Amino acid sequence: NATAKAALGRATWKLLHTMTLRYPENPTNDEREALDSYFHLFSRLYPCGECASEFQALLKKFPPQTSSRRAASLWLCAVHNEVNHRLGKEEFDCAHLDDEYDCGC
Amino acid sequence: NATAKAALGRATWKLLHTMTLRYPENPTNDEREALDSYFHLFSRLYPCGECASEFQALLKKFPPQTSSRRAASLWLCAVHNEVNHRLGKEEFDCAHLDDEYDCGC
Ligand SMILES: Cc1cc2nc3c(=O)[nH]c(=O)nc-3n(C[C@H](O)[C@H](O)[C@H](O)COP(=O)(O)OP(=O)(O)OC[C@H]3O[C@@H](n4cnc5c(N)ncnc54)[C@H](O)[C@@H]3O)c2cc1C
Ligand SMILES: Cc1cc2nc3c(=O)[nH]c(=O)nc-3n(C[C@H](O)[C@H](O)[C@H](O)COP(=O)(O)OP(=O)(O)OC[C@H]3O[C@@H](n4cnc5c(N)ncnc54)[C@H](O)[C@@H]3O)c2cc1C
Repeated sequence: NATAKAALGRATWKLLHTMTLRYPENPTNDEREALDSYFHLFSRLYPCGECASEFQALLKKFPPQTSSRRAASLWLCAVHNEVNHRLGKEEFDCAHLDDEYDCGC
Repeated sequence: NATAKAALGRATWKLLHTMTLRYPENPTNDEREALDSYFHLFSRLYPCGECASEFQALLKKFPPQTSSRRAASLWLCAVHNEVNHRLGKEEFDCAHLDDEYDCGC
């Protein structure tokens, strides 16, 4: 069921991008480890099996960047673009990240 | 911005419920630890600060149930109902979980 898979993907990217865009500007080591572990656990638990294994491979090639909010959000944008590329979608311009994601918080 | 907060919440619940409904029926210890850690890290990183602290308190009161797919998905349904209650929303009937979430995978 491709529609359900796409809807789950959209919901998930929304959470992940909003998360990196609210990640601390100057994270502590503990916060850095939390984000790194979060993405690795996420890649094991993501409910689309094919997506999960592809994402695990991506994390190996491009480990999460956790040194700052900017580093984390640009890293995730680049990784999402890798998925876009594989699926034949257009590349997203990472300069527009801030306009796209608002957490209302 | 309450609309953005609600949209982020809806997207996030969709991911979390779909995840528990695809969690193994008979998880290994390693898989159990992964799900438990995932929820704890999630509660630290969720981009709505007020929601995150409330959810951390909920996790203390109702630790993640990780012994099986059924235990995990009913636990999350109950915890989401706790949030619904606090926000004055209707209780969701957890017998309808399977009809509601389809990951397309
Ligand atoms: C971790 C992960 C792995 C996935 N792997 C697969 C897979 O292997 N096979 C598969 O079929 N589907 C996969 N998906 C789903 C897929 O990525 C899409 O979510 C789905 O196809 C719906 O696509 P969409 O065109 O609506 O936009 P999405 O890719 O879902 O993006 C949602 C919105 O985010 C914005 N956006 C787009 N690119 C970026 C970017 N680089 N940075 C920030 N914002 C951006 C755009 O506004 C876009 O409309 C995966 C999803 C996730 C979360
Ligand atoms: C962890 C977390 C904490 C949050 N904390 C707050 C907070 O403190 N303050 C705040 O204002 N907002 C909070 N939110 C957002 C809030 O829970 C809602 O997501 C938001 O208000 C939108 O509500 P909604 O009525 O569209 O349905 P949602 O609660 O988002 O639910 C989406 C859909 O899931 C289904 N559903 C409803 N209940 C259940 C259930 N128990 N089990 C399974 N499926 C169900 C229904 O079909 C519903 O339409 C939080 C969100 C999350 C993920």
